[in-house]
Amino acid sequence: MDLENYFIDNIKTRYIGDDGAVIEKRVYAMDAFWEETHFKKNWMSIEQIAYKAFIINLSDMVAMNANTKYMLITVALPQKFNEDKVERLTSTLKRLAKEYKIDIIGGDTIGSDKLGIVITMIGDSKIPLTRDGIEDGDLLAYTGTLGSVKRDLDRLFDGERIPDNSKFYNPTLRVDFTKAATPWLNAGMDISDGLYCDTNKLLKYNKLSLKELKPIPPEIGFSGEEYEMLIAFNPNNLNKIKRIAKATNTPITIFAQATTNKQEPYPCKSHHF
Amino acid sequence: MDLENYFIDNIKTRYIGDDGAVIEKRVYAMDAFWEETHFKKNWMSIEQIAYKAFIINLSDMVAMNANTKYMLITVALPQKFNEDKVERLTSTLKRLAKEYKIDIIGGDTIGSDKLGIVITMIGDSKIPLTRDGIEDGDLLAYTGTLGSVKRDLDRLFDGERIPDNSKFYNPTLRVDFTKAATPWLNAGMDISDGLYCDTNKLLKYNKLSLKELKPIPPEIGFSGEEYEMLIAFNPNNLNKIKRIAKATNTPITIFAQATTNKQEPYPCKSHHF
Repeated sequence: MDLENYFIDNIKTRYIGDDGAVIEKRVYAMDAFWEETHFKKNWMSIEQIAYKAFIINLSDMVAMNANTKYMLITVALPQKFNEDKVERLTSTLKRLAKEYKIDIIGGDTIGSDKLGIVITMIGDSKIPLTRDGIEDGDLLAYTGTLGSVKRDLDRLFDGERIPDNSKFYNPTLRVDFTKAATPWLNAGMDISDGLYCDTNKLLKYNKLSLKELKPIPPEIGFSGEEYEMLIAFNPNNLNKIKRIAKATNTPITIFAQATTNKQEPYPCKSHHF
Repeated sequence: MDLENYFIDNIKTRYIGDDGAVIEKRVYAMDAFWEETHFKKNWMSIEQIAYKAFIINLSDMVAMNANTKYMLITVALPQKFNEDKVERLTSTLKRLAKEYKIDIIGGDTIGSDKLGIVITMIGDSKIPLTRDGIEDGDLLAYTGTLGSVKRDLDRLFDGERIPDNSKFYNPTLRVDFTKAATPWLNAGMDISDGLYCDTNKLLKYNKLSLKELKPIPPEIGFSGEEYEMLIAFNPNNLNKIKRIAKATNTPITIFAQATTNKQEPYPCKSHHF
């Protein structure tokens, strides 16, 4: 087990294990986006870095069906930065805060050799969507199209450029779909570690096994940082989910079923570097 | 202006500028404690690093007269760390969480070359103590004895050792005093940048000037990271404050008065490296 997982396993409390923590209809989530952990400097512009740091945090809140109200931001600013670069960072964060009606309420700064952003988001949710609650026979589905992020990440690692509209830069968050579908879902999470790993995680959390309904090829299963939704619902709600998907222009793919029979999980390996 | 202040000035909202943000009796604060920004590796044990990261965050909450309930923790773990070191880090954080009845509800981990800890704390406050509200003629006072932290920091920079009971390792938070005194205070904050800088900050925030009542020598005024309280109150409350200070074993020193007359502020320079 790597050190980061060892830390998380050690610090774990009953609130930890989901995309965010739910306490009295409030949802809290904190995620870092850090040079050399999540991106390399020459991969992204400062605007793209600020945008992605924001959006991966928002994704956790969307995955919890929470309406984000406040955020705190801590940044590590490289010594080599100048005021122009800081200005590009802050103006992107401020633009996003305004667009999503989120108040920036605090944070901190540190000097560093690497650029990094840690965000804590705080939101409300009348019906929080958690990883908990899957039943035997529930259908598992994912939104959108998976695989392009892994392809683009491989290209970045090979020193190639990827288009500005790559989902690595601009993940599609399923805000409307998740909001409308939550009453009919038994569980949900965002796909950050890849469909294989995240499905395993979701089923393990619910002490259930995987029954594959549709083969998932490795180029899809291992594609991380997709930020699409992975959902579980009772087959009786299938038509409702399909209708909501159509109404919100959200492709969904049903690929597996939860089962109490012991079955092999997917192969899972971390895609992080 | 340095880049970090430029960032803060740029991102500033009406919630920012105090030790924490107050929203509907909830208080939120986020602070980082980072190798090479706040400490050097050979200065502190892992336990001392975890303790101080926790206590500087708690100090913000105490300074807001908030009762901390939850925290989220993001750590940057050096590649050279091993499980034993991670274990020492997590067990210190867990012990403190238990001792102060704070639930750890989330966070993140990153790989890094430096050790760093970012904490977001969330608490409740019936009477939040803010920096706002000082009136002409209010008395300014600080708790405890100031100066030892600068002396110890200078020693650390000179490669000397300092005792384990140094306030650099173990700041004294004035929990009981602040709780009891808040109804009689017009403003309060913790002293993190030194009495000179923090007094200037407090008065500027209230558009008032400094009338010195007692000379503050540089070795006291420039001593940062003291985490004692800087408070302002109406002279009519002096006896009440003195009584509370006595009852809670809290030395207090009245050193200045707020005035509408334009006066020179203290000399202020950042003590950070």
